[in-house]
Amino acid sequence: MTSSTALPPATLIGLNASQLAHLLQTRQLTAERLLTVCLERVAECEPQVKAWRHIDPAFAMEQARMLDSGPLRGPLHGLPLGVKDLFDTRDFPTGYGSPIYADHRPNHDAAAVALCRNAGAIVLGKTVTTEFATFSPGPTSNPHNVLHTPGGSSSGSAAAVGAQMIPLALGTQTAASIIRPAAYCGVVGFKPSFGLISRAGVKSLSESLDTVGGFGRCVADVALLTSVMAGAPEWRLPTGAGKPRIGVCRTAHWDQASPAMQHTLMTTVQRLSAAGVPVSDVELPDSFGGLAGVHDEVMCSEAFKALADERLNHPEGLSERLLEMLERGAGFGLKQTLAHRAALASARHQMGRLFAGFDLLLTPSACGEAERGLERTGDPVFSRAWSLLGLPSLNLPVGFGPQGLPLGVQLTGPIFSDTATLGFCQEIEALLQQ
Amino acid sequence: MTSSTALPPATLIGLNASQLAHLLQTRQLTAERLLTVCLERVAECEPQVKAWRHIDPAFAMEQARMLDSGPLRGPLHGLPLGVKDLFDTRDFPTGYGSPIYADHRPNHDAAAVALCRNAGAIVLGKTVTTEFATFSPGPTSNPHNVLHTPGGSSSGSAAAVGAQMIPLALGTQTAASIIRPAAYCGVVGFKPSFGLISRAGVKSLSESLDTVGGFGRCVADVALLTSVMAGAPEWRLPTGAGKPRIGVCRTAHWDQASPAMQHTLMTTVQRLSAAGVPVSDVELPDSFGGLAGVHDEVMCSEAFKALADERLNHPEGLSERLLEMLERGAGFGLKQTLAHRAALASARHQMGRLFAGFDLLLTPSACGEAERGLERTGDPVFSRAWSLLGLPSLNLPVGFGPQGLPLGVQLTGPIFSDTATLGFCQEIEALLQQ
Repeated sequence: MTSSTALPPATLIGLNASQLAHLLQTRQLTAERLLTVCLERVAECEPQVKAWRHIDPAFAMEQARMLDSGPLRGPLHGLPLGVKDLFDTRDFPTGYGSPIYADHRPNHDAAAVALCRNAGAIVLGKTVTTEFATFSPGPTSNPHNVLHTPGGSSSGSAAAVGAQMIPLALGTQTAASIIRPAAYCGVVGFKPSFGLISRAGVKSLSESLDTVGGFGRCVADVALLTSVMAGAPEWRLPTGAGKPRIGVCRTAHWDQASPAMQHTLMTTVQRLSAAGVPVSDVELPDSFGGLAGVHDEVMCSEAFKALADERLNHPEGLSERLLEMLERGAGFGLKQTLAHRAALASARHQMGRLFAGFDLLLTPSACGEAERGLERTGDPVFSRAWSLLGLPSLNLPVGFGPQGLPLGVQLTGPIFSDTATLGFCQEIEALLQQ
Repeated sequence: MTSSTALPPATLIGLNASQLAHLLQTRQLTAERLLTVCLERVAECEPQVKAWRHIDPAFAMEQARMLDSGPLRGPLHGLPLGVKDLFDTRDFPTGYGSPIYADHRPNHDAAAVALCRNAGAIVLGKTVTTEFATFSPGPTSNPHNVLHTPGGSSSGSAAAVGAQMIPLALGTQTAASIIRPAAYCGVVGFKPSFGLISRAGVKSLSESLDTVGGFGRCVADVALLTSVMAGAPEWRLPTGAGKPRIGVCRTAHWDQASPAMQHTLMTTVQRLSAAGVPVSDVELPDSFGGLAGVHDEVMCSEAFKALADERLNHPEGLSERLLEMLERGAGFGLKQTLAHRAALASARHQMGRLFAGFDLLLTPSACGEAERGLERTGDPVFSRAWSLLGLPSLNLPVGFGPQGLPLGVQLTGPIFSDTATLGFCQEIEALLQQ
């Protein structure tokens, strides 16, 4: 048996969370050694990437040594974890990406964080979020090219995993805040079904939409993280599920996808088809073209209410961009809420029928490669409908564009089919790696 | 024009929030005078009723004087307000009914609290909640008989309004935590449609169910409070809506209603019928009998996840009763979540069709009068299905039982018909007062 102390740092850094978990669970690797290697990588990358809002290496090392000297805590035993700074943490400041909360220090962990720690994860620090998970960015850069955005709102989590500083990180998605940064940073990001994971202790933006999820380097990584956060660490990905029936959706926003993104999606379809995966085009009902707009209205309307304290008591601490969004949200009343609800009920019903013929829908994860410049985090349009419908969605990195930045495809399954969806995504991942 | 200074305290105390608001808006009554009268009433009742966890008369008086010397702030200008201690407040400790949060002092207001303050309400203090809004009671007594429970979980808010210490109070409902204490304390309680009011800054128990609402002395009071919390203070109750078509539901739990409760409901039906209101029996589909059970499972399952930090890091601070509930919640996995969701979708669909023939459903608000003893807060069974379906529900006090304690009926409308539902409830209230 190879002792992990023999593995050089470069090899360890190259392993995914699932491989590392195996080494840690079998005590072939110590939490201290893994953390040491991660911290070296942080020292190397962080000055350029700026993924962290707060990091505490000494505190993390203390926990690593405690884990090494004690019994196995759970499936995340010894894995360093980044936590988006939208989750409350009892031993780190929690700023929600806003100067209003610069001095905020909660005494409690968000439920998802408590579950990860209880499963043995070591919270290395808090990762940068945009302002209250909206569109005003933090300082984070794309690890593939620091002149480009990492995407948002889970900017730091995606960038830290993309830069291989940590194997796993927590994020949230209201519009496209997991899928888009995952695509831009070239990592796997998973947004579970709405309602699967508790949001207790996560700053509220839009109650009908906010969803907790995570980032890793492969499908098995995010499955591991999701199972722990869902309070079901005994979950196992189905094996031998067979090849999923894939519906290719160009969506109503296809012309917003860059030529490289369009080409990559179609190449992916050809590769899957060549590998024997049943792939066919799926036409979404016309009404689906309007769902991105409904999503936008629901998000603005709910944010206007959720951020009432900040808007009324600390308006000077809000960005112009956020104030505009809240202003727009103020205009939607009960009548629109009812109309949104009716549109959603109808779309859910149609979606249910659509999934009778498919296991996964395949769409672009974003409009293309990460945009140049750090002032904007990119357009969430390709994820809005799935966020509105509460469906489990995953970004799978599938290549690079002409600027040398990652491109990803989005795989979406039926509501609460998270285990099956992840299983099918893993099949696709394996086929595309061949 | 009568100056309010001429109104004796007993008269002022007897007025409802809407009447008081009119006097305050027209400057016939000062906030200082109203608060003084409320504080006298608190001094008189609080030693027995124990509705408050924290109260700050001096701070409230300071705000009252500021309001009197400034412009009108909004529709709640000068009205003293009780806030359930499940809502974060920036100038009061916030304990969630748990010793774990005995020293918790948030720096921010829950969204609903911020909106009420912005509309001119004076938060007099925090009212007693059961432990995390579950079933382990605080010290509060029923204002009609201190040997009886006030109901829960919004125990202090219902009792403080019932004792006429304050005209308005905020509450939350996950199972029956507004309707039941309102019925027990003889006040109007309103649980709006799920999703109407932001829960930002409210301790999470069960994300699919937790709903913010309020207490007052009449339908117009809770409509006033709801419109402010919904961010729509321009709401007006419809007038001349006509008589609602009422469906009388005995529900699958009819035999759990006391003879007095059954008699009171049927007497109410006769009185409405005699007043020309179209009343008819409605048979709920058989499957509805199971919704209370589904509700219970969803609540336990989500609470198990939401209280992860407390369960894992502070188990010694949780009551036996709550630990049992969480233990039960641990047993439900993805498969049950899907089954619950399917049951709910089917029930919602059937409910929609049912409401084609009715404007309001009429059911008991609780099993009967408030139970004797303070160890239990009563059975939520008559509200579970409406909470699960997210429907707007209101308790209307309609008389007293053999023990001299209040009895109430529950009026429930279609989802997001909150304005119309409140309008119809007001018609019923007026007819029953004739």
